[in-house]
Amino acid sequence: EGRDSLHAGGEMEEAKSFEVIKYFPDRELVRVQDLTPEKADQLIWLRARVHTSRAKGKQCFLVLRQQQFNVQALVAVGDRASKQMVKFAANITKESIVDVEATVRKVEQKIESCSQQDVELHVERIFVISQAEPRLPLQLEDAVRPDGEGEEEGRATVNQDTRLDNRVIDLRTTTSQAVFRLQSGVCQLFRDTLTKKGFVEIQTPKIISAASEGGANVFTVSYFKTSAFLAQSPQLYKQMCICADFDKVFCVGPVFRAEDSNTHRHLTEFVGLDIEMAFNYHYHEVIDSITDTMVQIFKGLRDNFQTEIQTVNKQFPSEPFKFLEPTLRLEYTEAVAMLREAGVEMGDEDDLSTPNEKLLGRLVKEKYDTDFYVLDKYPLAVRPFYTMPDPSNPKYSNSYDMFMRGEEILSGAQRVHDAQLLTERAIHHQIDLEKIKAYIDSFRYGAPPHGGGGIGLERVCMLYLGLHNVRQTSMFPRDPKRLTP
Amino acid sequence: EGRDSLHAGGEMEEAKSFEVIKYFPDRELVRVQDLTPEKADQLIWLRARVHTSRAKGKQCFLVLRQQQFNVQALVAVGDRASKQMVKFAANITKESIVDVEATVRKVEQKIESCSQQDVELHVERIFVISQAEPRLPLQLEDAVRPDGEGEEEGRATVNQDTRLDNRVIDLRTTTSQAVFRLQSGVCQLFRDTLTKKGFVEIQTPKIISAASEGGANVFTVSYFKTSAFLAQSPQLYKQMCICADFDKVFCVGPVFRAEDSNTHRHLTEFVGLDIEMAFNYHYHEVIDSITDTMVQIFKGLRDNFQTEIQTVNKQFPSEPFKFLEPTLRLEYTEAVAMLREAGVEMGDEDDLSTPNEKLLGRLVKEKYDTDFYVLDKYPLAVRPFYTMPDPSNPKYSNSYDMFMRGEEILSGAQRVHDAQLLTERAIHHQIDLEKIKAYIDSFRYGAPPHGGGGIGLERVCMLYLGLHNVRQTSMFPRDPKRLTP
Repeated sequence: EGRDSLHAGGEMEEAKSFEVIKYFPDRELVRVQDLTPEKADQLIWLRARVHTSRAKGKQCFLVLRQQQFNVQALVAVGDRASKQMVKFAANITKESIVDVEATVRKVEQKIESCSQQDVELHVERIFVISQAEPRLPLQLEDAVRPDGEGEEEGRATVNQDTRLDNRVIDLRTTTSQAVFRLQSGVCQLFRDTLTKKGFVEIQTPKIISAASEGGANVFTVSYFKTSAFLAQSPQLYKQMCICADFDKVFCVGPVFRAEDSNTHRHLTEFVGLDIEMAFNYHYHEVIDSITDTMVQIFKGLRDNFQTEIQTVNKQFPSEPFKFLEPTLRLEYTEAVAMLREAGVEMGDEDDLSTPNEKLLGRLVKEKYDTDFYVLDKYPLAVRPFYTMPDPSNPKYSNSYDMFMRGEEILSGAQRVHDAQLLTERAIHHQIDLEKIKAYIDSFRYGAPPHGGGGIGLERVCMLYLGLHNVRQTSMFPRDPKRLTP
Repeated sequence: EGRDSLHAGGEMEEAKSFEVIKYFPDRELVRVQDLTPEKADQLIWLRARVHTSRAKGKQCFLVLRQQQFNVQALVAVGDRASKQMVKFAANITKESIVDVEATVRKVEQKIESCSQQDVELHVERIFVISQAEPRLPLQLEDAVRPDGEGEEEGRATVNQDTRLDNRVIDLRTTTSQAVFRLQSGVCQLFRDTLTKKGFVEIQTPKIISAASEGGANVFTVSYFKTSAFLAQSPQLYKQMCICADFDKVFCVGPVFRAEDSNTHRHLTEFVGLDIEMAFNYHYHEVIDSITDTMVQIFKGLRDNFQTEIQTVNKQFPSEPFKFLEPTLRLEYTEAVAMLREAGVEMGDEDDLSTPNEKLLGRLVKEKYDTDFYVLDKYPLAVRPFYTMPDPSNPKYSNSYDMFMRGEEILSGAQRVHDAQLLTERAIHHQIDLEKIKAYIDSFRYGAPPHGGGGIGLERVCMLYLGLHNVRQTSMFPRDPKRLTP
């Protein structure tokens, strides 16, 4: 069973002596980030990628990388290495994975180009675990270069399609590693906060029999002898869980929008962080739960993901994300007044255009110094049929959007929980009642007042980090023109 | 803004005095589970469903329910209530949601039929928050009755289609509440365990351009002017993340199987708990990580979900789930020998049939006293093309399934991480190389040895609880014949 695991693992060659790696060898692999002066003069084993390689006479300098950490390694002709071994090392292609046995040595002058600046490795043995093809479709150095930097010297940056076409390599950059570790953190903070608040996680189906909002922008699926749709949101199912006494629920999962929008902020498939809850007396209880959840996410990122934030900032500089406690809540009429004061012409019940949303974001930032706020009480006319009208002013509704850096990240509302009113509202919106019968019927057997909202994960990450394209925060983005990898 | 929230919230009537509920009234709502003798003689507010209602002369007895907790409430003609109010209370339909103001009273004789046995409520005021239709499609008492119980008295149980057609009501039962709270727990334990082990959560696309395993059993989606598929598993994307240096990843999300299987354990859409990790020397490092994660889940359920387990057991009795530490690992050849000894005729390289899997589960339980084990080293011929062959015996492979109570809950393997060997294996399986080019190319730029597996959430919950149909552990199950609700 000797080579059991590394079978077909690239060529297991070494210049000094060929050796078959033993079954569970008694060998501890050190992490690059743990290579510090305390380890000086120790003989260690390490598995890493060859980040760069430079031969120079009887020496070969390698930079060995693990995720965002790297260290310099020297293969030099002498007691430890033969001429052939130096040549072998110099020929290892970039991005190959190697195992090295090496002595850790303190260096006199800091190695500025590496994360481990105080030590280098003197290599005694080197094995290739997996060999990379010699021609890489993109260079990692280019992929992390800030826009414009080194332009005079003719240094390249990598365009987005090249990155996405070769995502396996692009995701290896320090920037990508940081972005997606932070994204993982957003999900964890979202769930942990809600679990502490007594929410229950639910799983909702993505293949559905009817398109709840009238059938626009919905993907069709062949389903045995019939056809079905991909859910545009888990809303109906979240609401059914509320009607089924789960009281407070959340879910994290894909949502699908067959919208032919080719913008920096639209994807055809994205990850929804969804919340729904029964409330006692006022839908602001829902807003308060959601905004507090967002604040806990912002605080968690600020406190636990500084390294990741700073790594991203190196390539994509941005101002730190600002938020208030409690969260600022503006009413729609106030927003319209602020925009009019800034010269925008719009009617009381007009929806906000994207440019006006952005302008409003800037005005709010100037006036209140926050990158996060809630816009409450949207005109009823611009919201879906299931939105609860404002009982004190039928032109408005108990609905809200939330914004980060002037862009919408959440849309939500109190929902109509009375079957009769819901029927009236659907008729008003000219929706075929037959198609939403199951939805309306859900409210016929006692339903508590409730509300919720859906957050776009990729947008939250993009805007928190001050990035400018949602494809930067989606590992494998889907848009009208991209279905691969 | 007076009735802002409860607008359209059913009729706000009360016999004694009609009152508009104030904006954020200064009123604390007590939870049913907190109604204990310590609250005796206090005047409290409560929101709950009318579980049952029984009028008797000048009195009306209600049972008020919140999730799995309930309490008796008495409306009696006297100082507190008029004759009209008793009549009003008696007419409130079952499953309606009410707010009551009531005094908590200790009772002399325990109320055996309620979770709160030591107190009852003497109602002073009652409001209907949301009225249920008088005819319910199923009765909650029937829906929690164990099979066969009360058959002589002509008491009904509820068949599965009726339950699923009226899921909003069926999910209100104590059994359903317990099942899905436990399911939420499984997801949390899965993620928390892996996060502690250094795994990163990833989000993978569900709409994909090519069906990786040759195109069988895959749903087709219309995608603008072309067509696409629904992912049968996140495997390619997990593997790409490993090739992109994320080292250890997991994801939780829907997977889709267009398989026309109408069995107790197949769904067309289910929730996959997926793991993938690079390993150092042997793929058993992967098995150890996965089995330890399962053991942490089993322990977490045993220690933190006893109430839920016992609630489910009341309706569906089963033996407590047994597991060993470390987890039992059998080789395929040992399993074949055990089955042959039990009289089964099968060849060395035959796949296990479902009945033989179950029989093997019983044999293993008898011999080792465990409901959970790993079957390792499957014949290469019965596994997908990307499975790593066993280097010491080319008839076998570095692949494994995991079983709970004799049914498969996970399938996994070491993956071929070398583009050339992968190409050879695909050709051997007669797979169109053009269709899996992107997959194979992922391994051309250095890939560490790695492995993983995918767990079916609904099966884990079903088998842990000793249930007999996966539709009991899927909130809104999808199968070839069911797309609703």
